[in-house]
Amino acid sequence: MSSAAGSQGQFSALDVGTLGKRLENIAAIAERVGPDSSRWTVREVGDGNLNLVFIVEGPKGSVVAKQALPYVRLVGESWPLPLKRSFFEYHALVRQERRAGVGTVPAIHHFDEAQALIVMEYLSPHVILRRRLIEGVKLPKIGRDLGLFCARTLFRGSDLCMPTRERKQDVALFADNVELCDITENLVFTDPYFEAELNRHTSPQLDGIVAELRADRDLKVEAQRLKHLFAAKAETLLHGDLHTGSVMVTETDTRVIDPEFAFYGPIAFDVGMLLANFWMSFFSQPGHETKAGEREDMRAWLLGVAEEIWATFRAEFAHLWRTERNGILYARSVFEDRGDSLGAEQALNAVISNIWTDLLGFAGVECHRRILGLAHNADFESIADPDRRAACERPALRFGRQLAVARGSLHSIDEVNELARIIARVHTA
Amino acid sequence: MSSAAGSQGQFSALDVGTLGKRLENIAAIAERVGPDSSRWTVREVGDGNLNLVFIVEGPKGSVVAKQALPYVRLVGESWPLPLKRSFFEYHALVRQERRAGVGTVPAIHHFDEAQALIVMEYLSPHVILRRRLIEGVKLPKIGRDLGLFCARTLFRGSDLCMPTRERKQDVALFADNVELCDITENLVFTDPYFEAELNRHTSPQLDGIVAELRADRDLKVEAQRLKHLFAAKAETLLHGDLHTGSVMVTETDTRVIDPEFAFYGPIAFDVGMLLANFWMSFFSQPGHETKAGEREDMRAWLLGVAEEIWATFRAEFAHLWRTERNGILYARSVFEDRGDSLGAEQALNAVISNIWTDLLGFAGVECHRRILGLAHNADFESIADPDRRAACERPALRFGRQLAVARGSLHSIDEVNELARIIARVHTA
Repeated sequence: MSSAAGSQGQFSALDVGTLGKRLENIAAIAERVGPDSSRWTVREVGDGNLNLVFIVEGPKGSVVAKQALPYVRLVGESWPLPLKRSFFEYHALVRQERRAGVGTVPAIHHFDEAQALIVMEYLSPHVILRRRLIEGVKLPKIGRDLGLFCARTLFRGSDLCMPTRERKQDVALFADNVELCDITENLVFTDPYFEAELNRHTSPQLDGIVAELRADRDLKVEAQRLKHLFAAKAETLLHGDLHTGSVMVTETDTRVIDPEFAFYGPIAFDVGMLLANFWMSFFSQPGHETKAGEREDMRAWLLGVAEEIWATFRAEFAHLWRTERNGILYARSVFEDRGDSLGAEQALNAVISNIWTDLLGFAGVECHRRILGLAHNADFESIADPDRRAACERPALRFGRQLAVARGSLHSIDEVNELARIIARVHTA
Repeated sequence: MSSAAGSQGQFSALDVGTLGKRLENIAAIAERVGPDSSRWTVREVGDGNLNLVFIVEGPKGSVVAKQALPYVRLVGESWPLPLKRSFFEYHALVRQERRAGVGTVPAIHHFDEAQALIVMEYLSPHVILRRRLIEGVKLPKIGRDLGLFCARTLFRGSDLCMPTRERKQDVALFADNVELCDITENLVFTDPYFEAELNRHTSPQLDGIVAELRADRDLKVEAQRLKHLFAAKAETLLHGDLHTGSVMVTETDTRVIDPEFAFYGPIAFDVGMLLANFWMSFFSQPGHETKAGEREDMRAWLLGVAEEIWATFRAEFAHLWRTERNGILYARSVFEDRGDSLGAEQALNAVISNIWTDLLGFAGVECHRRILGLAHNADFESIADPDRRAACERPALRFGRQLAVARGSLHSIDEVNELARIIARVHTA
């Protein structure tokens, strides 16, 4: 990896014509793609909302170049967004690779802070996990890989493991990621619960339930308490946007991408957001059936993935608790060093129990914002018929409400999966 | 106030001989003390553990000069402690005065970052609150003043009130106060619960109960959960060391001093630590009686102060909630702006309820660390007879244990005061 330092002049947005010249003199890139950019093929493939993404192919190989723009790409210059999100993405990728292992995120070949440009591994033949789920494709490794990724990045980025001086420095570093936090704070936790300007939903089909949810005092209070938790609990370095659109997969490989929302927040946030996206996929499956019942198997598999993610997370978190609990929290000096390893286990249960209860809340609001807010997900959006789409979205909204408000009385992933099945059944009947 | 910027060369520790020359050319100081330092009287009066404190008197008036040393004064150069704690104290004082009002902290006349020197208002005839409590003196304003101070500084330093960009910048600024946090993290939350080298306690009188507490698994787990909360919940700018030794008083004036432990942590921490010191004073009073029952009145008054602090805090916090809730949390757009002010009240109840439950936990560990850890307090320490002292300390330890472990089932300050009375009575009987 080449040096991350050293600005290369004023920012200018790249295009397929200028990219080659910009990159051909960087040894780490020329090595991978081949010298002489006139022999490279550059394609712009960014289909996200925020950034430019180029695939650069040459005689020796390929890389991806991702460049931030000083505004939200989808909306244009009227919605400015700082280039420094690229800086946070770079620093998050470095930490995630260290914590979760090489091959869990794209390898980085080059970072240019001034150009807000990250050149990284071209993942091929990977596709976005969400797309596969919409297609009804089962991926055998995904539950275990994502459970491990969460446990390792979230445990190792916290005071459970890191030297606290380093953690505090990291808290300070990522505290500057204000604008992307602001997006989460508003779009996830607040806008869905009132008639915010950027909201939209399948209308008029969902008008009734939307009005009901926005008048639901208990739900609004819980959503705001979850926002409080998100904003105040600087527990670990989050991915910050860990949904099935932030994962690229093959049958045998799983990579987590796009951590530009990285921020110190509660462990439960990443896990809850991730699980919510599998549960939403569960609710969306009937909308993709070409004949009734065709996706039953897929739906059962999705609930199984949720179960596997949580079981893997819990097992790995417990393993790290027992083997790498070297931070300032739950010090061994008070437990194991005094022959009280059961005390450490009791504390572990308390910590996991808190993560569990909180993640259900975060999962609940994630279900709502994807259906009521600005940033919908393709699981539902790609169901063209609005009646059919609404029929999938409605139970997901009910499910989210129950998770957010009644999370204190849901004690296992089985109970939550059962709740999903029951709500889906009631709405189908 | 003169500029806070501008280092004046390499740090050198001041003494009564050099202080005058250093300060006489600073307009803000010369104005207050008078020109020509040869006519000044300088006394070193620091009785704390960490710093140099000078009183500077001249023909026009007086100031206090507080200088940090690069080590812990009490221990010497073998325990280094960075000068930057002075920088955090300065920034905390500025914020506290803005949030709680002029006259709640000492006015600052001059700050020299490189010399780790704060020149501030000389508070006279103020004395340290703890000394007054040991003497059995009642102070009519203290409950209300401290309740207001806590509510205003803690509410206004959080995302309930501040623009979140500013709060995040402040989180980053104070995240560098690593060494002083480290003192709290170790001395308050960990060391008391095992045989740490720096610990001491009244021995052999307390040996039995100390062994019992250190073998108490539930207590240890709770203490570590509270540490987790302290380290991870960057909710508001704390004073960080708000005990009765950090308050200077007259009959009519209350000033909070020494916020060098300032850090973003949970609202409940300052309030809990403060209340614990009144409860410890309650338990210590019999040790200061010259005849039995002499301090009964004082003891009742102390429990009344605890009640008044909490009632004032709660009322003022609720008032600010209704009038200054301008931050990103519990947004009006979801509640009042939709005619749902009751929703905001429900959320307020949830927030206060959490603060309450957590503050009892922090109060519990504060009781322990003052009796079992390194930094004891004069309330107990000034009881010369170790049997008498231990007789006061023992119920305080039991009380602390109950607060830390059973805080979820204590719902009002009355119940806690009643618990204090019962435990004191059992131990006297």
